[in-house]
Amino acid sequence: MSETDYDLVVIGAGPAGLCAGIYAARARMNVLVLEKAAPGGQILITDWIENYPGFPDGISGFDLGDKMHNQAKNLGVNLKTAEVLSMDVSGENKILHLDDGSISTKTIIIATGASPRKLNIGEEKFIGKGVSFCATCDAPFFKGKTVVAVGGGDTAVQESIYLTKFAEKVYLVHRRDELRATKILRERAFENDKIEFIWDSVVSGMDGFFNVENVKIKNVKTGEEKTIKADGCFVWIGIIPNTGFVGDALKLDEQGFIVTDHTMATSVPGIFAAGDVRTTPLRQVATAVSDGSVAVISAEHFIENHPD
Amino acid sequence: MSETDYDLVVIGAGPAGLCAGIYAARARMNVLVLEKAAPGGQILITDWIENYPGFPDGISGFDLGDKMHNQAKNLGVNLKTAEVLSMDVSGENKILHLDDGSISTKTIIIATGASPRKLNIGEEKFIGKGVSFCATCDAPFFKGKTVVAVGGGDTAVQESIYLTKFAEKVYLVHRRDELRATKILRERAFENDKIEFIWDSVVSGMDGFFNVENVKIKNVKTGEEKTIKADGCFVWIGIIPNTGFVGDALKLDEQGFIVTDHTMATSVPGIFAAGDVRTTPLRQVATAVSDGSVAVISAEHFIENHPD
Repeated sequence: MSETDYDLVVIGAGPAGLCAGIYAARARMNVLVLEKAAPGGQILITDWIENYPGFPDGISGFDLGDKMHNQAKNLGVNLKTAEVLSMDVSGENKILHLDDGSISTKTIIIATGASPRKLNIGEEKFIGKGVSFCATCDAPFFKGKTVVAVGGGDTAVQESIYLTKFAEKVYLVHRRDELRATKILRERAFENDKIEFIWDSVVSGMDGFFNVENVKIKNVKTGEEKTIKADGCFVWIGIIPNTGFVGDALKLDEQGFIVTDHTMATSVPGIFAAGDVRTTPLRQVATAVSDGSVAVISAEHFIENHPD
Repeated sequence: MSETDYDLVVIGAGPAGLCAGIYAARARMNVLVLEKAAPGGQILITDWIENYPGFPDGISGFDLGDKMHNQAKNLGVNLKTAEVLSMDVSGENKILHLDDGSISTKTIIIATGASPRKLNIGEEKFIGKGVSFCATCDAPFFKGKTVVAVGGGDTAVQESIYLTKFAEKVYLVHRRDELRATKILRERAFENDKIEFIWDSVVSGMDGFFNVENVKIKNVKTGEEKTIKADGCFVWIGIIPNTGFVGDALKLDEQGFIVTDHTMATSVPGIFAAGDVRTTPLRQVATAVSDGSVAVISAEHFIENHPD
C-alpha cells in the first residue's frame, strides 16, 4: 500500500462516526472524521434518549451528541467540516472527492446515517412554513396551535408526545390501525388527551396562502378524503440512507442501505459501514457506537494485512 | 405458547444484560434480570473506561456500572440475585433451574459474560495472597512493592499501567515479543519507567511461605528459567465464557463461546446471547450494549410470532 493522506477516513460524525474516531485515535491511527453539518448527527434533533445505557435519568440528544463530540476532541480526533461528493475506490488506495479538494486514504468507514423520508405530496414548498421533520427543532413555533403528525413508529409517537408540550392539539395520522412504536410510548400516547389518532389514513395534500392552513387526509380503506384545519404537519414515516456519493461502488440492499458482514466490511475491501446507513436489524445509539468500534478494529486488521 | 412466569429472563447484569433489561422494560415485556453477584459485571473491576461514547473525560468502570444499574431500576426493571444452575429448553417454554427454585419463560437472553483465564501453574493457592486478576480490586495492597503481571492485550497493559500508581516495579511478562494492546496503551506502557518488559516468556511457577515471594519465569524460546523476587502476580491472559449452566443445549464455538447470528439468535429458537459470552469480533462496553438491545428486539419478534 503506497503513501496516503490518512490511514482511515470516517465519513459522518454521528454516534457511529464519533465512536469510530474515538477508537481510531486510541489505536493511534492517522484518522480524519468528516462531517458536512454539525458533529452529533441525527441525535442532535432527538428530544430525549432514555435507552442509551449510562444515563440513569435519560439525556437529551443534543447533550449526548455534544458529549461524544467533546470526547472525540479530548482524544485528539481530527474533525473537518466537508461534504464527500464522490469516491474512487478502483485502486489500492481510496480517493475521496470533497467539496474543497480530494484526499487519499487506506480505509474508509461510511457512517453517514439516514435522513427522514418525504411524503412527496407537494409538502416541499411548505418546509419551514409549517412542514417539519424535527419536533425538537420546530415544536416551539406551534404553541397553542393545531398540528398533524404522520407515522406510527417510535419516532412518530415519541415526537408527537413532545409536540403536545407546545401544540394545543396533535392529530396523529397512521396508515395502519395500530402503532408500531414500543409499548411504553404507545401507552404514553394513548394517555395523552391532546393526541387524537386518525387510523388507516395518509396525508394526501396540503394547502395554505403562505404557511400551511389545511391538511388533506385520506382513509386508505374507504378512499374517503377529509380536510383538517392545521397550522403544521410533522412527518415521521421512516428514513432513507445517505448514500448519494457512493454511486454503484458498494453493494446496497433494496432500500439503498449498505450491506455489510458482522465485521462491518462492505463489498469493497478496506471500506466499512457503521450505524444507520447499513443494513441492520436495529438502528439505535447503542447499536451505532458498537458498529463504529467494530469497524475500526476491522480497518486496523485490513491495514495490518496490507502493509506498505 | 402457554402461560409462563416471564416473557423474558435475562441471565447476567453486566452492560449487555442491563441494556437488555432497559429495552425490555421500555417494550413493557414481563422481564426478569438475574445476576449471581453485583449488577455491573466485569466493568465493575475495570479501572477506567475512556472509549464508551458519552463520557468526554472517561469514567470509572464502577461508576458506569452503577449508572447502568440505576437506569434499569428507574425504568422498573425487576432484578434478582440468583445463580442459574441448569436449563431445560426441550419444551416450547423454557425452564431455568436457579439456586432457589425454578422459573419458566418464553425467551432467554444469556449475557453471563466471561471470566479471567487462569495460569494453571499452581497459583490457585495464592489467590488473595498475592495472586490477583483485578488491579482495581487489589493494586492498593501493593504500595511500594514489586509485582509480576502476565499478558500482552489491552487489559494486561492498561492494568499494568494502573498498577504502577501503587507498585514500585512491575515486570510485564508476555509470551510473544510484541504487545497485542492498542497503540495508545503500548505507548503509555513503554514510556512508564516502572514497567519492565520480559518478552517471549511465561510464568511457570511461584512459591512463598504464606504470601507469594518468588515468581518463576520461563523463556519459551530458550527454555531458560529464572526466579524474580516479587510480592504479587497479576494474571491477564484472556477470558473464558461463563457457560457452565448451558451444557450441550446450545451450539458453542471451539473456545466455548455461544454462536449467534446477527440478530443474537442462538441455535435454539427463543434463546439469544449478548455481550462477552457470545462469539463476536470485539468485546467492549459499546458492543455489549448493542448486543443487549438487538437481542430484546429479536425476543419481542419471537414472542409475536409464537402467540399464546
